[in-house]
Amino acid sequence: TIYVITPTYARTVQKAELTRLSYTFLHVPKLHWILVEDSPTKTALVSQFLSRCGLTYTHLNVATPPVFKTKSADPHWLKPRGVLQRNLGLEWLREHLHADTANGVVYFADDDNTYDIQLFEEMRYTKRVSVWPVGLSGYLRYESPVVTNGHVTSWFTYFRPDRAFATDMAGFSINVRLLLDRPEAVFKNTVRRGHLETNLLSAITTMGELEPKAHNCTKVLVWHTRTEKADLRNEDKFKKRGFPGSNPDIEV
Amino acid sequence: TIYVITPTYARTVQKAELTRLSYTFLHVPKLHWILVEDSPTKTALVSQFLSRCGLTYTHLNVATPPVFKTKSADPHWLKPRGVLQRNLGLEWLREHLHADTANGVVYFADDDNTYDIQLFEEMRYTKRVSVWPVGLSGYLRYESPVVTNGHVTSWFTYFRPDRAFATDMAGFSINVRLLLDRPEAVFKNTVRRGHLETNLLSAITTMGELEPKAHNCTKVLVWHTRTEKADLRNEDKFKKRGFPGSNPDIEV
Ligand SMILES: O=c1ccn([C@@H]2O[C@H](COP(=O)(O)OP(=O)(O)O)[C@@H](O)[C@H]2O)c(=O)[nH]1
Ligand SMILES: O=c1ccn([C@@H]2O[C@H](COP(=O)(O)OP(=O)(O)O)[C@@H](O)[C@H]2O)c(=O)[nH]1
Ligand SMILES: [Mn+2]
Ligand SMILES: [Mn+2]
Repeated sequence: TIYVITPTYARTVQKAELTRLSYTFLHVPKLHWILVEDSPTKTALVSQFLSRCGLTYTHLNVATPPVFKTKSADPHWLKPRGVLQRNLGLEWLREHLHADTANGVVYFADDDNTYDIQLFEEMRYTKRVSVWPVGLSGYLRYESPVVTNGHVTSWFTYFRPDRAFATDMAGFSINVRLLLDRPEAVFKNTVRRGHLETNLLSAITTMGELEPKAHNCTKVLVWHTRTEKADLRNEDKFKKRGFPGSNPDIEV
Repeated sequence: TIYVITPTYARTVQKAELTRLSYTFLHVPKLHWILVEDSPTKTALVSQFLSRCGLTYTHLNVATPPVFKTKSADPHWLKPRGVLQRNLGLEWLREHLHADTANGVVYFADDDNTYDIQLFEEMRYTKRVSVWPVGLSGYLRYESPVVTNGHVTSWFTYFRPDRAFATDMAGFSINVRLLLDRPEAVFKNTVRRGHLETNLLSAITTMGELEPKAHNCTKVLVWHTRTEKADLRNEDKFKKRGFPGSNPDIEV
């Protein structure tokens, strides 16, 4: 089983994002989607969406405290996002799987990235931790592990290539047993900028143990795409002119 | 058959967009994808992508002349996009189908929108022209036909609701016979801003004949999402520092 942990939060494009993401996942056998809302309650939109999506899923929620939230004036890399949500997904796995029978891998898939379904066949046979390139990441065409004689020896990235695991969240998967064996391995909201992945992976593996996938890290099978915020300025303009605007009963 | 005509152009996110779009279309029975590159030649990236995507497709290309191209300083609504490409798709249909045997509908699907697969079942049985709401369009939560007693009577849109067919490109489908019977119906690069759809639809139908779909236009099954341009500033920074940057042989 591939356990895909996805943090998600309410915004105008959320249903669109989850819809197209679910169509990708539907092409992947034995995928279990752990969708974790950044919200104090489970929303009706996500609950209904999941019940109709046709995937095997677990629906969780936890709100990020305001102090850790990205503000609209912040650059998007200032604070890590989805941290408590990914940790809740890990916690669910640790509660519901048993170290001696568990079988599968864990992947952290943000709701706005784009995934080639071949990626899931690459990660499916991860013994400890697999790694591969991530397209459109780190202000580069891609960021990638550097592979020498079949082993990861360094990282192709502009930002701090000296990080022990200089990979994006989308660039690795972990055998679930490793996570069950190390209950202390969680993401930390308080690590230095850009060190979220390195911090977690340092707790469970070493660079020499990494399994390079995607033809020795020469194929891009995941893209760090970002969707524009929808600009709804004409709703306000309608209201200023005394018109009702769109019908709030119509879900978007 | 649903003939989906999609204009597409080379940019950093193109392969990601086409990949996730193809995963949506793969869930739709009897879909024929007419993908038209805005390019003087068929690119290797798109050719290879199509040959592996698993869909029934036709690959075409035509370059938009520079005078009609959106410049990076232009607002995105200034000039219509994908006009020559959609027309080439129509031309292909008129050359390859016969008015007496043709069966199906034509839909213009931009490569960056998000589609609920239920939309295709809604449009599949279009007699003349079907219409429905489009989410996140026109700076509103959605734009939509207004339906009264089962008929379209006006348009919910902020921009020029007086247009005869004030719908986005994603908001209608046309029975292919109608297009074969009216070879003069094409898109025009020269119409007033925002009048591309109205201009085409005026040549083939009237408001009273429109078939409202999606529960009398109360469900949003397509979203006018837009993907952020990928910012690759660190490629240049590498070069300035005398490093090679990413490997151009790795396709993104
Ligand atoms: O307040 C937030 C912001 C983001 N996310 C989720 O965290 C992940 C990463 O966020 P985003 O894609 O915005 O980050 P970036 O693309 O800038 O890395 C995504 O799955 C989001 O849905 C979240 O749960 N709460
Ligand atoms: O120079 C261009 C710009 C856009 N397009 C295509 O035309 C359609 C509409 O373009 P876009 O999505 O950028 O427009 P918007 O979202 O602003 O309506 C999309 O399928 C694009 O791939 C194109 O063929 N050539
Ligand atoms: Mn993201
Ligand atoms: Mn678009």
